[in-house]
Amino acid sequence: MKELELIKKLKQHSSLHGETKNIIKGIGDDCAILKPELNSYLSITTDTLVEKIHFDLNFISAYDLGKKTVLANVSDIAAVGGTPLWATLNIAFRNGLNDNFWNDFINGICDTLQEYKISLVGGDTVASSVLTINLTLIGAVIPEKWLRRDAAKVGDKIYVSGYLGDSAGGLKILNLNNNEKLDIGDSDRNYLIKRHINPSPQLELGKMLSSKGLVACAIDLSDGLATDLSHVCEESCAGAIIFADNIPISRETNNLSKLLRISPLELALKGGEDFELLWTANPSIEDEMLKEATKILGHRPYYVGQITEGKGVFLEQNGQKEEITYQGYEHGSYKTN
Amino acid sequence: MKELELIKKLKQHSSLHGETKNIIKGIGDDCAILKPELNSYLSITTDTLVEKIHFDLNFISAYDLGKKTVLANVSDIAAVGGTPLWATLNIAFRNGLNDNFWNDFINGICDTLQEYKISLVGGDTVASSVLTINLTLIGAVIPEKWLRRDAAKVGDKIYVSGYLGDSAGGLKILNLNNNEKLDIGDSDRNYLIKRHINPSPQLELGKMLSSKGLVACAIDLSDGLATDLSHVCEESCAGAIIFADNIPISRETNNLSKLLRISPLELALKGGEDFELLWTANPSIEDEMLKEATKILGHRPYYVGQITEGKGVFLEQNGQKEEITYQGYEHGSYKTN
Repeated sequence: MKELELIKKLKQHSSLHGETKNIIKGIGDDCAILKPELNSYLSITTDTLVEKIHFDLNFISAYDLGKKTVLANVSDIAAVGGTPLWATLNIAFRNGLNDNFWNDFINGICDTLQEYKISLVGGDTVASSVLTINLTLIGAVIPEKWLRRDAAKVGDKIYVSGYLGDSAGGLKILNLNNNEKLDIGDSDRNYLIKRHINPSPQLELGKMLSSKGLVACAIDLSDGLATDLSHVCEESCAGAIIFADNIPISRETNNLSKLLRISPLELALKGGEDFELLWTANPSIEDEMLKEATKILGHRPYYVGQITEGKGVFLEQNGQKEEITYQGYEHGSYKTN
Repeated sequence: MKELELIKKLKQHSSLHGETKNIIKGIGDDCAILKPELNSYLSITTDTLVEKIHFDLNFISAYDLGKKTVLANVSDIAAVGGTPLWATLNIAFRNGLNDNFWNDFINGICDTLQEYKISLVGGDTVASSVLTINLTLIGAVIPEKWLRRDAAKVGDKIYVSGYLGDSAGGLKILNLNNNEKLDIGDSDRNYLIKRHINPSPQLELGKMLSSKGLVACAIDLSDGLATDLSHVCEESCAGAIIFADNIPISRETNNLSKLLRISPLELALKGGEDFELLWTANPSIEDEMLKEATKILGHRPYYVGQITEGKGVFLEQNGQKEEITYQGYEHGSYKTN
């Protein structure tokens, strides 16, 4: 694809939501000019994805790569209880990727932006020898009510929104050599790969937890429960205990773990990119929170542990306690937010 | 430098201006949370710089690279008449760069952010095989008064803020082989290289032109007068004529051009990265605009041409007219804003 066609496609998308999203000027000037919403704060998150570090084009289609680029950032907005509004997209592209690739990739990006009613307002496209994608999302949060990592209180119960370890399981299947046969059914295989490739950020849940004012502390599970909860504990100057028996693990991840002879708990605690939400709740508001969250999730959230005094994250299993602070997944990357 | 030290340094910087810059939460959560200024719009610009495409570490020090990364984005904010407030910085780093490099680079970034009172509020750092830097700047502009590319009117006079072609001249000197001797004095050499390495974005000028309401149309000269004015003409549905004799060219660029036997006009029209401002003004407000601009620049702005009916950019020289539409500098990149 000619670079100018790529730009044209991005511009077309950017004009879709102009009026409804307070875009005074989108693509086409030195800056995008945007009108912030009254009585809102801005929430900003940015991710860089590098080929072979964060994704492998043997395992993910161009369309799904575009989609996941957006979803991972939407999950960060979900974690603060925000509403995503605007995106900038920077692409450092390499040779050797054909028109179909770029078409599919841009469609993946644009379809997903559209799904979440996000407008593309700018970006930059440059040549490189390594495909590198940078997406920055700007959203709106409610002042005083946005969800933060540093607001967990001793005695709070810890909840997560869905099964943990599925994404890591999907990645394990994708990483198998062609020679390694795995006696797993198509349905399990497809479910786990889908959970890795097409995660579902918990945007509605985050917005509800924020707007109802029931909850103050949340994080999205991008680096595994052990690491992400460690962030919450460190920022909140508290500790946490996780009950192994309470961790929600899907039938499919349990099946896979048996086949691979690994512990499903390892996947659930240390596997990244589940993009579920973790939040903490004072027991006094638990009933209302559970009712509202269940409406959105279609199932009850999972109670997995408790915020404690002290520091560090511990796993309680068979009456034993084991420290698991920061034992999470690393992409070979760390983030400043 | 350990990655965590790098992050620590960035965090230290980010906390410097927190209170004065409406930062509710900077680095350390899923999103940065920011309070937009009342009665302002946001202006957003983003650049990706790739090693060997946009910079060569043989020619630019780590400190100056950090500095220029910020300056190029500040220039985009200047072009809309904005005030830069917040930055996110994404670094894809490669092996083989030592602690001194990272120290100097981060100092270059942070010193320059501080000079412009910009706060670093987030980012991402990842491993790669190619050093790739992405900076996104968010600023504030005055609604209805921000400067745009699409507001030039037929009959407007075209002004630029400073000498053109110096940066391209500096780059030519840097690109000479060791074998190519150039009989240029140290003072000329240093001036031109400095204009390439340490450009001075015209932030105060842009803010004045916007806030006084005298001017509606501006662009920063990052890709050369011929290309940047072509953007203005295309967006404004107009044409332009440039008078060759009026183009401001420094003594140093004239000297260099003689030595290299090239036309100084080529450097001025097609050389990139001068980061001067170009704006158009109705003759009726010319006197006041010139008075105010002269106060800021310390010299009168340069009147270089006129907005005309029709389309395309033409150069008038020795009574002849030649089309120069989009004959500018390309980094091998194009931008979506």
